[in-house]
Amino acid sequence: MDSQKDAFFSFIKELQNIITSKLESLDGNSKFQEDEWHREEGGGGFSRIIQDGDVFAKGGVNISAVHGALPLAMQKYFNVQDADFYATGISLVIHPVNPMVPTVHANFRYFEMYDKTGSLVDCWFGGGLDLTPYYLFEEDARHFHQVCKDACDRHDVADYQNFKERCDTYFHNAHRNEARGIGGLFYDYCRADENHSMADWLEFQKDMASHFLDAYVPIVNKRKDLPFSTENIEWQEIRRGRYVEFNLVHDKGTLFGLRTNGRIESILMSLPPIVQWKYDHHPEPGSKEAELVEVLENPRDWIMS
Amino acid sequence: MDSQKDAFFSFIKELQNIITSKLESLDGNSKFQEDEWHREEGGGGFSRIIQDGDVFAKGGVNISAVHGALPLAMQKYFNVQDADFYATGISLVIHPVNPMVPTVHANFRYFEMYDKTGSLVDCWFGGGLDLTPYYLFEEDARHFHQVCKDACDRHDVADYQNFKERCDTYFHNAHRNEARGIGGLFYDYCRADENHSMADWLEFQKDMASHFLDAYVPIVNKRKDLPFSTENIEWQEIRRGRYVEFNLVHDKGTLFGLRTNGRIESILMSLPPIVQWKYDHHPEPGSKEAELVEVLENPRDWIMS
Repeated sequence: MDSQKDAFFSFIKELQNIITSKLESLDGNSKFQEDEWHREEGGGGFSRIIQDGDVFAKGGVNISAVHGALPLAMQKYFNVQDADFYATGISLVIHPVNPMVPTVHANFRYFEMYDKTGSLVDCWFGGGLDLTPYYLFEEDARHFHQVCKDACDRHDVADYQNFKERCDTYFHNAHRNEARGIGGLFYDYCRADENHSMADWLEFQKDMASHFLDAYVPIVNKRKDLPFSTENIEWQEIRRGRYVEFNLVHDKGTLFGLRTNGRIESILMSLPPIVQWKYDHHPEPGSKEAELVEVLENPRDWIMS
Repeated sequence: MDSQKDAFFSFIKELQNIITSKLESLDGNSKFQEDEWHREEGGGGFSRIIQDGDVFAKGGVNISAVHGALPLAMQKYFNVQDADFYATGISLVIHPVNPMVPTVHANFRYFEMYDKTGSLVDCWFGGGLDLTPYYLFEEDARHFHQVCKDACDRHDVADYQNFKERCDTYFHNAHRNEARGIGGLFYDYCRADENHSMADWLEFQKDMASHFLDAYVPIVNKRKDLPFSTENIEWQEIRRGRYVEFNLVHDKGTLFGLRTNGRIESILMSLPPIVQWKYDHHPEPGSKEAELVEVLENPRDWIMS
């Protein structure tokens, strides 16, 4: 029987195929390019990148499985010494061409830690998905959250309201006092307890990850052919600046990768293709752009309970 | 008689006028826009921003003087408690239109710390200037460094070779293993000692700051009318991505500002107007672009001793 880590790695390997095939067929023009990479200290990954498509301007769907001695920065973070680790996950960010189509991010990961005899001493799942629109379509936000909630509701271990709030808290550009987007789910350190096993978490993790395309693809289909202006593109590029600010200033995963000798190009695939910074830019009051900012400054409950 | 801090503030206020006037006359089209801002806890500043010029795409020349209780993050950094502070300085970043003209950054600052009785317990100068070309013109790099060296050589307190090496060390994109640009000077915590007074440091600081325009303007004049292609602009925008990466991931001043309730728009005026991220981009071997990267990966001594 496969170990839990092997089972999860097999799952994300297959999921990478499913997601990239679907996105390629949606795009109709560009294909993902795959790069295999190896980590000197153990493990590696497969990065798949799409660029300059008709629907997707830039995106990556990456899987990795790395292992070895726990890097110093992680020893310090977890307050352990002389440990080994294994970490695997799938991570994706998709930046569409049309400003009416939101950027999406998802990550589903699994982590194991061992003592120096090789015994497993800790393990957990983490992950989530979140949506970053440039123009607000409330029904899209509700749809995305509904798919998240439905997956949570199918599993005793998962708590939609809690994961939704943690997403709002995490994907927050504190220095701007605004959310990165309209949220989704965020969960981490999901361990077994008296009521639930790791197998329960694995089932939720696989279920949520398997429904990523259901959360995102209908929105792409609905918005990808909407007309847009150069002003819409300018706004998209300005907002993409905020995406860069979040990822480089606040995102723990990105900073951790940059500090622990991760593969730079795979980590920074999350950065948008074209970005603008204008000094002290504010949308016109009452505009569609201002409506988005209003929601980012005041995160909403998208699903009425 | 003016205190040292008042003398330095008067100096940078006048210097802001001199620099912005000169840059406006060079640009010939755009003017700096001034915003005055106030810090809730004490002090404030005057930000001057130029955008969409004929020569300068985006730039800021800011002065500030802030004071009050030392923010918690700074107490921790300096390992002191219950202190008050006063900090003043001029900070500038200029991103030109023409990819043959380098981006430039300079900062000249003064810091005082007091105990709770209001007695001065510590004070120092810091600052520097550095150049970020998109295409390498060796004579420009030599000229920039020569102006820096000449200023250092006029003052016993200043050590060009030391400040030049600290600049190479500081403005380093560690995660890319390359320099941000071709360097310049970096110095900090410049205090009085047995051989030199704060007045000596003030004289050097004023002399170096007063020669900023001599270091940069001749380069602008020499390169601003050179022809360039869309490929040159693409390279400029990709390199500007590296500038963003440095400022948001590594620059202590930027991160400090973002974490201590600084004025966001004044801090982030350093970010370039338009930026690209392409996956795993590498210039053609033997190209002008590759020649730049070679120098960034292997910082040079621009002045033969």
